[in-house]
Amino acid sequence: MSQLDLDKLFAKIEELKPKFIERLTDAVAIKSVSGDESLRPEVVKMSDFLVKELTTLGFKDIVQKPLGTQPPPVVNPDIQLPPVVLARSGSDPSKKTVLIYGHYDVQPASIEDGWNTDPFVLTHDKVKDILYGRGSTDDKGPVMGWLNVVEAHNELGLELPVNLVCCFEGMEESGSLGLDDLIAKEASDYFKGVDTVCISDNYWLGTKKPVLTYGLRGVHYYEIAIKGPGADLHSGVFGGMIGEPMTDLIKIMSSLVDSQGKILIKGIADMVAPLTPEEDKLYDTIDFSIDELNAATGSKTSLHDNKKDALKHRWRYPSLSLHGVEGAFSGVGAKTVIPAKVIGKFSIRTVPNIEPAKLDKIVIDHCNEVFKSLNSVNSIDAHLLHDGNYWVSDPYNDSFASAAKATKHVWGVEPDYTREGGSIPITLTFENELKTGVLLLPMGRGDDGAHSINEKLDMSNYINGCKTLGAYLHYYSKV
Amino acid sequence: MSQLDLDKLFAKIEELKPKFIERLTDAVAIKSVSGDESLRPEVVKMSDFLVKELTTLGFKDIVQKPLGTQPPPVVNPDIQLPPVVLARSGSDPSKKTVLIYGHYDVQPASIEDGWNTDPFVLTHDKVKDILYGRGSTDDKGPVMGWLNVVEAHNELGLELPVNLVCCFEGMEESGSLGLDDLIAKEASDYFKGVDTVCISDNYWLGTKKPVLTYGLRGVHYYEIAIKGPGADLHSGVFGGMIGEPMTDLIKIMSSLVDSQGKILIKGIADMVAPLTPEEDKLYDTIDFSIDELNAATGSKTSLHDNKKDALKHRWRYPSLSLHGVEGAFSGVGAKTVIPAKVIGKFSIRTVPNIEPAKLDKIVIDHCNEVFKSLNSVNSIDAHLLHDGNYWVSDPYNDSFASAAKATKHVWGVEPDYTREGGSIPITLTFENELKTGVLLLPMGRGDDGAHSINEKLDMSNYINGCKTLGAYLHYYSKV
Repeated sequence: MSQLDLDKLFAKIEELKPKFIERLTDAVAIKSVSGDESLRPEVVKMSDFLVKELTTLGFKDIVQKPLGTQPPPVVNPDIQLPPVVLARSGSDPSKKTVLIYGHYDVQPASIEDGWNTDPFVLTHDKVKDILYGRGSTDDKGPVMGWLNVVEAHNELGLELPVNLVCCFEGMEESGSLGLDDLIAKEASDYFKGVDTVCISDNYWLGTKKPVLTYGLRGVHYYEIAIKGPGADLHSGVFGGMIGEPMTDLIKIMSSLVDSQGKILIKGIADMVAPLTPEEDKLYDTIDFSIDELNAATGSKTSLHDNKKDALKHRWRYPSLSLHGVEGAFSGVGAKTVIPAKVIGKFSIRTVPNIEPAKLDKIVIDHCNEVFKSLNSVNSIDAHLLHDGNYWVSDPYNDSFASAAKATKHVWGVEPDYTREGGSIPITLTFENELKTGVLLLPMGRGDDGAHSINEKLDMSNYINGCKTLGAYLHYYSKV
Repeated sequence: MSQLDLDKLFAKIEELKPKFIERLTDAVAIKSVSGDESLRPEVVKMSDFLVKELTTLGFKDIVQKPLGTQPPPVVNPDIQLPPVVLARSGSDPSKKTVLIYGHYDVQPASIEDGWNTDPFVLTHDKVKDILYGRGSTDDKGPVMGWLNVVEAHNELGLELPVNLVCCFEGMEESGSLGLDDLIAKEASDYFKGVDTVCISDNYWLGTKKPVLTYGLRGVHYYEIAIKGPGADLHSGVFGGMIGEPMTDLIKIMSSLVDSQGKILIKGIADMVAPLTPEEDKLYDTIDFSIDELNAATGSKTSLHDNKKDALKHRWRYPSLSLHGVEGAFSGVGAKTVIPAKVIGKFSIRTVPNIEPAKLDKIVIDHCNEVFKSLNSVNSIDAHLLHDGNYWVSDPYNDSFASAAKATKHVWGVEPDYTREGGSIPITLTFENELKTGVLLLPMGRGDDGAHSINEKLDMSNYINGCKTLGAYLHYYSKV
């Protein structure tokens, strides 16, 4: 495809803008909240909507893959997981094949939460040129974006420059239940021959500069359970007579991290990949500031006084957060209880080259050693609750290079190369099962409020986002 | 009153046993749960029941003192506190006047909680000779006990050896709201001329030996609030970038007490009254064992290997318990939250000669100093939530001596002199406002399960308890 073709594509996308807004309006109107069992029919309805759209756009092999019964905890023990929608456009062996992933479920939303408009009515603020609605940015906007790209090609009578394989799930906001198994199963079947994976389900770091995302931290979530008396006791009667589980737990929790965020468990820092001068330089140009961080947290609680250190600690250093305590008093006011069994919760965000099994051993040994030093009359059970590994890609591979060219072409600037502090576990699953690279190519901005009230997608991000996705396919087809 | 009179009284009490069981049955049947607003009419009904009984028994000046509207938090903002029932029997200036306090409200109870029988049907297990029912021991049994004593005198045509003033409240299980003010107000009015106060609202230490209680620990309840970001944050995105309030809070909480129960705040131990050899000897004969402690806690979590140390730490040494954290994650499972504001809760049980104001200063200064040493970006507000002072009486004064004689007479053994680890704040209010001594003269046993399922009162404790209350009045009238 020539430069002329891309110009035509962009012009067609502009022309089809009313149609694209209508498509997103229809999608947002379906209350596909995966976390609310009573709305499960709406989630299924959203998958039907996708099938209809994909059919109209000429996709082939369209299937709604069932994932079976949802595992507990559920209200309705027979409730079925929403299907994964698979579809293809093109199967030309001379073309590259790109798997595009997105999700069609959304977070819960209710006008009572404080939305300015009905969350399930896509509302166009024409002064700000912003589209408001649940799922606008997470992730119905990007999913519609891919369909829009195909429609623009169809209208122009242009063939797609690559073969597309769609994988749209309906359970992402509820732990992507069942998806890992499906990917493993379809790796050598439906997904056979995929050259690369593109996920558009994250955001720019800030509000001004487009980004490509090449890394995610992992997470290991731990529990420390301390068991003492057979039942909760009155602190007046038993305080001073017995060893209290909370005392032991708090001692152990206080040994994990300091107020400057430094992890105090020995051996973790040694596993972290050293910062090279080249990597350090990458942070110089990134569009971010401590003021932006403070605005995001609504406070002045930054541990760092410069953007480079702050971002390194979000992206490339581990962190340890104490989340809370299960089993202790957590209400308002006073309760003079000695909790009988308490479970402390904390997690560690992991980065290269932390070895998962070694980390678990170090952490659990640490908890047990501190507990032993307390000479407590109680008992301990420290264990891993769940984990997901970190992910880092080569940001200069063919897929990333193509996305960079597309971004430059559409937005007129080189994208920032970012990581994210959180995890998108499916990224790693695709990479491991399909043995391909994965690109995270975001459409929305850092202030879109994906899981909050008044979720939005700027019109420019929606339309330029469509152009970027289209241009990416074209540049990638040529490498 | 002669020895012969006492023998007659005891015989009459035995004779009236069926009547006394009936009286307690009627009382237990009224669901006077003060903590459940929907049952407030039942609490009022219980006060009416008392008025009816007191009238029948010939009491005078019977009044249901209104305490006004219940302060928030309440469901119904207009809900009225249950009245305090006041009544007199006798006003002979040549006799001593004894104020008897009890409460006619009870803890919540429901068969679904695991009761073996309907909690509001007094059930006589004839094999074990035990009465089961909510309020049987706490505190309807003792309140009926006083009425039973008067009835036995009436039946014998005997005058009471003292003037009695009744003060029965209906809000004890819900913080005795309004009672302090009423006592202060009536000290020079209804309660004028009271020589001593007798409270029967606690329990034997164990199950075999009667006790007289001469001391209670106080309690100071503190909160440490740490405030950071403006809202809860995602630990993936912000972990490592910001100072987390939980980290600071856990550090401070871990500096308060060790796993052996030793308070680590400097200056508190210095205020505790030294143990004299005489006091130490008091513990030698007390009927208690570590096995009983373990049975009560359902565990082997005792910090001490002998009864004397264990009891000293319940009664005459301070203790510090960490109760929990408000604002942090407290559910089952995993939540990767950085809580924005957390409030740690702890309390200190106080003993002679801890000065309340000095204690608060030491504790809050300690929290602030530890926080300062953390160099945190967050802010702290450590404060006292509520307090109640300790109480210790002379266990050999006239009232205690009379109760000791009564106990010996009825049970055939010298009572143990005990303290309690918890607080009964009203004890101190009576002492301060009426400028009289207070005696705690329990009816039930240590295993009665006052606030638990299957609350009970052994028949021997009910009947011998009535005899003890009656004999106490007689011995006290003679000193």
